[in-house]
Amino acid sequence: MRETEKGSFTLPGESGYEELTLQLARRWGADMIRDSDGTVLSDELTNAGYGIYSTICLIRDHNEWAKAHPEQLQQTFLVTEPRTGTEGHLSIPLMEDFYKDQFRVNESPESIKYWQVYDRTSNQEISPASWSYDSKTQSVAIMEICPFHEYTVNFLAYRIWEEISMYNHVTNHWEKEHLMPLDPRHEETRSYLYSWLKTWCGEHPATTVVRFTSLFYNFTWMWGSSERKRNLFSDWGSYDFTVSPAALKEFEEEYGYCLVSEDFINQGKFHVTHMPPGRRQLDYMAFINRFVVDYGKQLVELVHSFGKKASVFYDDSWIGLEPYHSSFNEIGFDGIIKCVFSGYEARLCAGVPVKTHELRLHPYLFPVGLNGTPTFAPGGNPTKDALEYWNRVRRAILRQKIDRIGLGGYLHLVEKYPDFCSCIENIAGEFRQIKELHEKGGVYTLPIKAAVVHAWGKLRSWTLSGHFHETYMHDLIHINEALSGLPVQVEFLNFEDIKNGALNHVDVLINAGASGTAWSGGDGWKDDGILEETVRFVHRGGCFIGVNEPSAADGYHTFFRMAQVLGIDQDTGSKVCHGRMEYKKESIPGVIPEGACIKGKKGLYLTDRKTSVLAEEDQVPAITYHEFGAGAGIYLSSFQFSCANTRMLMNLMLYSRKMSLKQNYLTDNPETECAWYPDCRTLVIINNSENPQTAAIETDSSMVRAELAPYETVFKKI
Amino acid sequence: MRETEKGSFTLPGESGYEELTLQLARRWGADMIRDSDGTVLSDELTNAGYGIYSTICLIRDHNEWAKAHPEQLQQTFLVTEPRTGTEGHLSIPLMEDFYKDQFRVNESPESIKYWQVYDRTSNQEISPASWSYDSKTQSVAIMEICPFHEYTVNFLAYRIWEEISMYNHVTNHWEKEHLMPLDPRHEETRSYLYSWLKTWCGEHPATTVVRFTSLFYNFTWMWGSSERKRNLFSDWGSYDFTVSPAALKEFEEEYGYCLVSEDFINQGKFHVTHMPPGRRQLDYMAFINRFVVDYGKQLVELVHSFGKKASVFYDDSWIGLEPYHSSFNEIGFDGIIKCVFSGYEARLCAGVPVKTHELRLHPYLFPVGLNGTPTFAPGGNPTKDALEYWNRVRRAILRQKIDRIGLGGYLHLVEKYPDFCSCIENIAGEFRQIKELHEKGGVYTLPIKAAVVHAWGKLRSWTLSGHFHETYMHDLIHINEALSGLPVQVEFLNFEDIKNGALNHVDVLINAGASGTAWSGGDGWKDDGILEETVRFVHRGGCFIGVNEPSAADGYHTFFRMAQVLGIDQDTGSKVCHGRMEYKKESIPGVIPEGACIKGKKGLYLTDRKTSVLAEEDQVPAITYHEFGAGAGIYLSSFQFSCANTRMLMNLMLYSRKMSLKQNYLTDNPETECAWYPDCRTLVIINNSENPQTAAIETDSSMVRAELAPYETVFKKI
Repeated sequence: MRETEKGSFTLPGESGYEELTLQLARRWGADMIRDSDGTVLSDELTNAGYGIYSTICLIRDHNEWAKAHPEQLQQTFLVTEPRTGTEGHLSIPLMEDFYKDQFRVNESPESIKYWQVYDRTSNQEISPASWSYDSKTQSVAIMEICPFHEYTVNFLAYRIWEEISMYNHVTNHWEKEHLMPLDPRHEETRSYLYSWLKTWCGEHPATTVVRFTSLFYNFTWMWGSSERKRNLFSDWGSYDFTVSPAALKEFEEEYGYCLVSEDFINQGKFHVTHMPPGRRQLDYMAFINRFVVDYGKQLVELVHSFGKKASVFYDDSWIGLEPYHSSFNEIGFDGIIKCVFSGYEARLCAGVPVKTHELRLHPYLFPVGLNGTPTFAPGGNPTKDALEYWNRVRRAILRQKIDRIGLGGYLHLVEKYPDFCSCIENIAGEFRQIKELHEKGGVYTLPIKAAVVHAWGKLRSWTLSGHFHETYMHDLIHINEALSGLPVQVEFLNFEDIKNGALNHVDVLINAGASGTAWSGGDGWKDDGILEETVRFVHRGGCFIGVNEPSAADGYHTFFRMAQVLGIDQDTGSKVCHGRMEYKKESIPGVIPEGACIKGKKGLYLTDRKTSVLAEEDQVPAITYHEFGAGAGIYLSSFQFSCANTRMLMNLMLYSRKMSLKQNYLTDNPETECAWYPDCRTLVIINNSENPQTAAIETDSSMVRAELAPYETVFKKI
Repeated sequence: MRETEKGSFTLPGESGYEELTLQLARRWGADMIRDSDGTVLSDELTNAGYGIYSTICLIRDHNEWAKAHPEQLQQTFLVTEPRTGTEGHLSIPLMEDFYKDQFRVNESPESIKYWQVYDRTSNQEISPASWSYDSKTQSVAIMEICPFHEYTVNFLAYRIWEEISMYNHVTNHWEKEHLMPLDPRHEETRSYLYSWLKTWCGEHPATTVVRFTSLFYNFTWMWGSSERKRNLFSDWGSYDFTVSPAALKEFEEEYGYCLVSEDFINQGKFHVTHMPPGRRQLDYMAFINRFVVDYGKQLVELVHSFGKKASVFYDDSWIGLEPYHSSFNEIGFDGIIKCVFSGYEARLCAGVPVKTHELRLHPYLFPVGLNGTPTFAPGGNPTKDALEYWNRVRRAILRQKIDRIGLGGYLHLVEKYPDFCSCIENIAGEFRQIKELHEKGGVYTLPIKAAVVHAWGKLRSWTLSGHFHETYMHDLIHINEALSGLPVQVEFLNFEDIKNGALNHVDVLINAGASGTAWSGGDGWKDDGILEETVRFVHRGGCFIGVNEPSAADGYHTFFRMAQVLGIDQDTGSKVCHGRMEYKKESIPGVIPEGACIKGKKGLYLTDRKTSVLAEEDQVPAITYHEFGAGAGIYLSSFQFSCANTRMLMNLMLYSRKMSLKQNYLTDNPETECAWYPDCRTLVIINNSENPQTAAIETDSSMVRAELAPYETVFKKI
């Protein structure tokens, strides 16, 4: 086997299927074997000459310790559903709305002092003197209510079932003990877990890589009592599950002010990543991040002291890890592993400053997939799934190096799917070829530096909050997915970055999202200095691409603060009696490929006669182009990821830079893309569609033509 | 001819077509002949034994006086389009954006002192010391600008072409002198016009009714310089065209504070009727209303002193008239005339406290209609138009008495349309029969009192701001149109009324519109007292029907303040990660008729397990029913007027009142309706559709069945 025919592949091994494991390890070119949640590796496997990944979820699987120290379980603030009072007195049962297997009320005095009772109608807190807690009925009684107002109780609850385990347990109908999550915020637990890991490392000499899944705190995932609404709240990026009286006390000491439960509950809205963060929220995140980095560093050093490597999973209990924060390097991880459905997730992984970037490809080797549809079960088509996900991921891997790929789950499930085994063999081969090209030199990129601006900036590079299927309703995830495989440089900025001159090094600035969200930017646009910088950037030659409700803010003469640059604005009701400027649809040859399509939006109207309308829906502009100074403003009423729309985005960037749409190393067919590795003089051409395609590519020496089977990858030496 | 076969009809006469005029007067049963804009009546017509309506638009057609007193022309505040400054200095030409035939800059010192220059980026006014006006170039120079900020100038302009005349002139390519509008705010003009009217009355002994078209101030209608955007702003209900330095000075004296131009300009948004009014706006409206009532009263008294009657047109220069204000009666008009396309406009007219309510039916006898499509011209079908409009109006007239109908325009145009002449003959006959039924006793109404609540309340009863085709994008106009012919009592409330106990006499409260608009109510819902009253009203047995974004306000735990009553709320972005309650669509037999249909909306989610979902779109609830205390909350994601939806609204009201859907005097077919006049023991059954229909109606004595031709009206004595 050539070097590129093996290695860089992590295989989930399974005891009892040793022969299958070793056979597939050879076939797929694995160099590492891992265990998974629910599987163990036999000695035969750990001693077969492969590197061994061992999965550790440090904070769970210590139920004995947890039972002995119930006050050191992880916690969260909860809020009861609003209840209407009609007479003088109202009793609110705390746990009625919640999944009792997940939560237990923390009734300690240091907990209750953080509880808050709110009149949500008047937005007023009820004085603690006016309510009382009855431990027997676990309910709060409010002495005197205002008739027909609604009341809620913010309270603190222990979490008594680690959420990922809970999910797997419930989904697979396991009959095992519920694993409880420990909070390392407590010195005692911290020491206990440290010792435990030390012992574990000593007892597992075969393990070459400790794979943390992940660190301490899961993303927020609250379950309800009703089967009609089991999922109360879930957000991949929010910090609710890190809280405790101990953490709040330390926060107060460090920051000089004290947080209250309402800082978390936020009228029952919590703080979704999709909304702009506030100062107190950012302070708290920084505080937790510091803690996770400090303790994480100790654990990684411990692992290293045993001569093992340490890597971390960029999902599940990743809260506080923040791989895009400058502090991440301090922890000292050797690798990061991201489970991926999409190109943007591959870029999210690839951009982390760590030695080894590894992708956990989908589908997982489970009978059913994440959304409950069959995978390795009757009705499933895992080969098709694998190809489609690989197709999404591949174009991103062509742009930025990924070091490893691998699978997860129960290996024995693939036995009945020989097609799937061949498919993975091909994918592994393609992956290794692409990796080799990156290692021998960079990929060619057009001289365009694109930046996305939103409230989070670099901290939420590429991702919004979770996978594509969880965030598809936001335009930006579609933009990010398109960008993930385009031959341009991409970075993510927040408003502070703009103030600090970040636009001096940017050619195209993108702002995409609904008004008020973190992605559009919300109040960030109310800073005149930021607006001036952004308008000046365009006036001097930059391009601003606004999608949906870019730069939207209430209280000004226009709804889009960048309306003067875009030449279009949106009426939010106060301009319904204003006339609309008539226009004729124009077309810029080649910019909008066949099949490109943008969902229209109501209330849009031109603010400048010079604005060109390139597309419309129901006689309302949907895509516009507007020259401003030496630059341009481009507006798209929405953006959905597709091959044609991705090419349109590329074309719009080129056109705004006054560059020809016919660039070398761009294919002539939007269903296909290519990547050029000049040092290897290799052109990689990919078919992103499920149909056969042809592609013609102008290079610096010749015109290259290719015929591609569905999803095919062609490597051409030139 | 029986009494009901003639009278109550106003015919537009036309000199040169005397025979036609008199022949149609007989055929249509006219008792009055009128002139129209552009026609005169010959002596033969005025002396033919009919009452004579003479149309007077008092403030125009005095160009000699206007030229001698140019400072007494009507005025308005204008604002230039925002202009971006890039360097130290910026010059803004005032008139570049405006139609020069309509406006002339008022450059007098007392005008300029009201001008304001704004940095619209920072929302700051520029000190008058920092800008100057150059009369030669008619532009404002700003000394030092902030680069990339946008600037505007608010200035005062004379209006040099009366807008309705301007519109007719431009549309019909007239080559006549432009008529200038005089402002009776000036004592001199007031006296001049008074004398002129006195002379006129003396010189027109044949005139029996002076028909004012209308009083002094037109609704706002600003035209732009660009043919691509001729209509800059138009609002049937806003007061911009009443302003002048003289008015502002008097306002300040009366109200003790002074208004500035920005009170009118409002960031270039002006104050559309569709948005909630502010305190200063309401003060100014009251101030103008007082003036119009006072001077209007003098004119009406003058007309009466000549033994003539005075009536007024409820369109065009109606600003300040306010027929739904308590002061209206003081003016002393004998009649009011409303031009109507729709049922709600008939109710708007019928509800004014005046002796004679008259409808000007459509189509007008013009070659082209309001939206430019042919009427009495090739391609037009005036008979079809007349039938369709009558169909909309008829059901409203069945519910509340109208005293007269009539037409407007050029009578000679009907000569080639014998069908149209028959059609009007039939309509006139039907109308007179309906009027007679009302006069002999009331119409039967179900024991349901419905109220619509919005920011304007009674002042904007029935109408929003203009005709149906101008306001169709607002749910409420569809609701009002549905209500206009339903057998329920209807009233219009504002939030102050609710505070004052208005809900004690209401069964069903309706709130319909987009968030932030006057119709949904905007900040009106932020008053806890109003919310308490409304929730209590439902809890005690009332029904709250919310459409689109009812009771919406930002800053609370729910977006709909009435969410607890409705059992449904809307996510505006901060709850995108919250789980949604699953539901199964339910149905309440008979409530939603076949063909009823509601446009869905994004982001809606149930807040209570008890909420019943009666309709959905894209798996989002669209119609819900929620019991609350002894009453119920009903939510509709939108409402479009149609026969089926109108019946659905009726059914929902009945169901919420726990009344049978099978009521006496309701037809079994939503395409048909009926009205029962118990004193005449007459049942009127109408076919609201263009197809033949059958109807069965249970009465107190028998089951009545009818077969109806398209649009037919059947009168049945029982």
